[in-house]
Amino acid sequence: MEMPASPIRKLVPFADAAKKRGINVYHLNIGQPDIETPPSILKAVRDCDIKVLEYSHSAGNESYRKKLVEYYQRNDIHVNPSEIIITTGGSEAILFGFMACLDAGDEVIIPEPFYANYNGFAIQAGVKVVPIRSSIESGFSLPPIADFEKAITSKTKAIVVCNPNNPTGYLYSHEEMDTLKDIVLKHQLFLFADEAYREFCYEGHHTSAMHLKGAEQHVVLMDTISKRYSACGGRIGAFVTKNKTVLDAAMKFAQARLSPPFYAQVLGEAAVDLPGNYFDTTKAEYKLRRDTLISRLNEIPGVFCPNPGGAFYAMAQLPIDDCDRFAQWLLESFSYEGSTIMVAPATGFYSTPGLGTQEVRLAYVLHVEAIHKAVDCLKKALEIYPGRREPATKKSAALS
Amino acid sequence: MEMPASPIRKLVPFADAAKKRGINVYHLNIGQPDIETPPSILKAVRDCDIKVLEYSHSAGNESYRKKLVEYYQRNDIHVNPSEIIITTGGSEAILFGFMACLDAGDEVIIPEPFYANYNGFAIQAGVKVVPIRSSIESGFSLPPIADFEKAITSKTKAIVVCNPNNPTGYLYSHEEMDTLKDIVLKHQLFLFADEAYREFCYEGHHTSAMHLKGAEQHVVLMDTISKRYSACGGRIGAFVTKNKTVLDAAMKFAQARLSPPFYAQVLGEAAVDLPGNYFDTTKAEYKLRRDTLISRLNEIPGVFCPNPGGAFYAMAQLPIDDCDRFAQWLLESFSYEGSTIMVAPATGFYSTPGLGTQEVRLAYVLHVEAIHKAVDCLKKALEIYPGRREPATKKSAALS
Repeated sequence: MEMPASPIRKLVPFADAAKKRGINVYHLNIGQPDIETPPSILKAVRDCDIKVLEYSHSAGNESYRKKLVEYYQRNDIHVNPSEIIITTGGSEAILFGFMACLDAGDEVIIPEPFYANYNGFAIQAGVKVVPIRSSIESGFSLPPIADFEKAITSKTKAIVVCNPNNPTGYLYSHEEMDTLKDIVLKHQLFLFADEAYREFCYEGHHTSAMHLKGAEQHVVLMDTISKRYSACGGRIGAFVTKNKTVLDAAMKFAQARLSPPFYAQVLGEAAVDLPGNYFDTTKAEYKLRRDTLISRLNEIPGVFCPNPGGAFYAMAQLPIDDCDRFAQWLLESFSYEGSTIMVAPATGFYSTPGLGTQEVRLAYVLHVEAIHKAVDCLKKALEIYPGRREPATKKSAALS
Repeated sequence: MEMPASPIRKLVPFADAAKKRGINVYHLNIGQPDIETPPSILKAVRDCDIKVLEYSHSAGNESYRKKLVEYYQRNDIHVNPSEIIITTGGSEAILFGFMACLDAGDEVIIPEPFYANYNGFAIQAGVKVVPIRSSIESGFSLPPIADFEKAITSKTKAIVVCNPNNPTGYLYSHEEMDTLKDIVLKHQLFLFADEAYREFCYEGHHTSAMHLKGAEQHVVLMDTISKRYSACGGRIGAFVTKNKTVLDAAMKFAQARLSPPFYAQVLGEAAVDLPGNYFDTTKAEYKLRRDTLISRLNEIPGVFCPNPGGAFYAMAQLPIDDCDRFAQWLLESFSYEGSTIMVAPATGFYSTPGLGTQEVRLAYVLHVEAIHKAVDCLKKALEIYPGRREPATKKSAALS
């Protein structure tokens, strides 16, 4: 009963009903990229010549872990194969981190809004999530250090940082990452770093938690190939840390579930050999989409959307009474030129009740023309939505 | 710290060292079949023509769930696709069952010896395992009903039955399954049924927990394709129940981890179309191995091994002081004609300290000639092992 239902998937029956009525639905609600999976890595799976589909090593195939070392090196992250456990998606890496580092009753601090499934993994581990607020007015930058200090108790064992952020798209600066380092060192906490969107940075440089000198024993990297190579269905991620005690503990969870899936490890291994410019093309495409989406959104009266520095999400403030009601209304009662849009209500990303009611998360995982049409829909919808309410925070004030 | 290390994998470094010394190791320790994965299902993956490796539905691809309905129907198990959640191996199905049906502090009764990883999943769910003993003298049949009654408290919420059993190979009779039904109905418990080895029955008929009339709302089937199609590395299993509340709860865990791996679902779907005689060939091979292993073992002075009715494991009683010490000694200090064997010490499968010290689990996952050579090794080893101790239970008494 404690386990939360997915806040995004709740709307799926309404979307299905809309489609049955013949309405085209623009899916801005989920982080499923439409970018093609690189053909060379799909081919690696097709070329896979095995006689017996055996268990992998519980930490993943050694050849893959060795290859990943090269990938991390290119990102200035220096680890050896024994510091990597291949996981079933980033999801399992997060679960292993919570299970291996925290006891039941411990607390983990997460700036909100945050990736909703952290709640589910925390509940599985019996851990309490303590949110501290990052606000749309400041573009979702790191909350002030005083807010962390206020939230820390004797039960606090870790902080989660998702960089670039899902759902806000915010890219934490080197200074902000340094602030986090100071906090975890001062209070002897773990820093759980979810860097699923590492490559998708459009302004400035990505600072990995693994770059933080002196915090090596505190950092646990929770990684995934899902977004990086448009390979969400493979279910391959990685749990990476230089802390031997944590590695040993995580390995016990890895052994209990025997091994990560074989085929997608082959795919992940091939991905490390993609040409050096692979991300340039993908990034350019995402940047174009972001620029289109953000500028179009901010032209709509009453809408405010900070410019996200990374990932492929934007959090927009809308002139609405309640984002859950609005999202459902879009699917149930609205269409424009035969189409409507599906958005992720922001309430699902906030842990504090009442926050995010006028915000939605938009994933720019559609091509530019579709984004234009989707924003056209949103604009029309806001003109006629019966629950229109101007946000308390004025757009002009926030943008200044 | 509470999480147990894998009792089997602890010995791996000793096996690696033996191999480095040039010694051939017969692996009777793990359930990794050497049977080839059916080429047609490997081909289904190679033929997989996708552009984007997308997330599956959290419950698994609908086409696969529909196909699985056919598979279950052939086994006289009548479910619909919405009663199936595809999982990442049987491991995840077990974890979902523990997480979805039990609260922290609840108790689950499991006849020991049992599959060691149940302990790990129980710890992750904060659940207490209460073992009741099945003994080698009775061939590991179901413990008497009085033992269940004695173990049941107000905290007891479920019983786990693994049928055919890992590690004992015991095949529960229809009468024994009926006894379990009576207990779960009387005390309103869940019956978690691990039927990974359903097809591998050499004596009589398999009774699925899903066959138990009147217990439909109590039974949760935890299934896997790993052993069935020699596809352990795919990591595909299934969580099956007709209890809607349990399904809804399990779906929340399924949604938190997004989806099961894509490729092995394609493989699993193809497997349902294997020719009707597929299992005949595999079963005949396993039966030959079992017959060879068991008869050879019982010829060795001081060794007793009940004839297992299913799976591909046998639990043997040996004239030794301590199975952990013996297993390590086999790898460290023994060889015969350049070879040694690796066995799984039975202590890892017992929850009660002190039980199983004179037992080992042997997996007959090697071809018959290798089994002969492996038993030759074991026979020689027992002749010279310095810690030889006759078992308290005499073989003749047990066999009578």
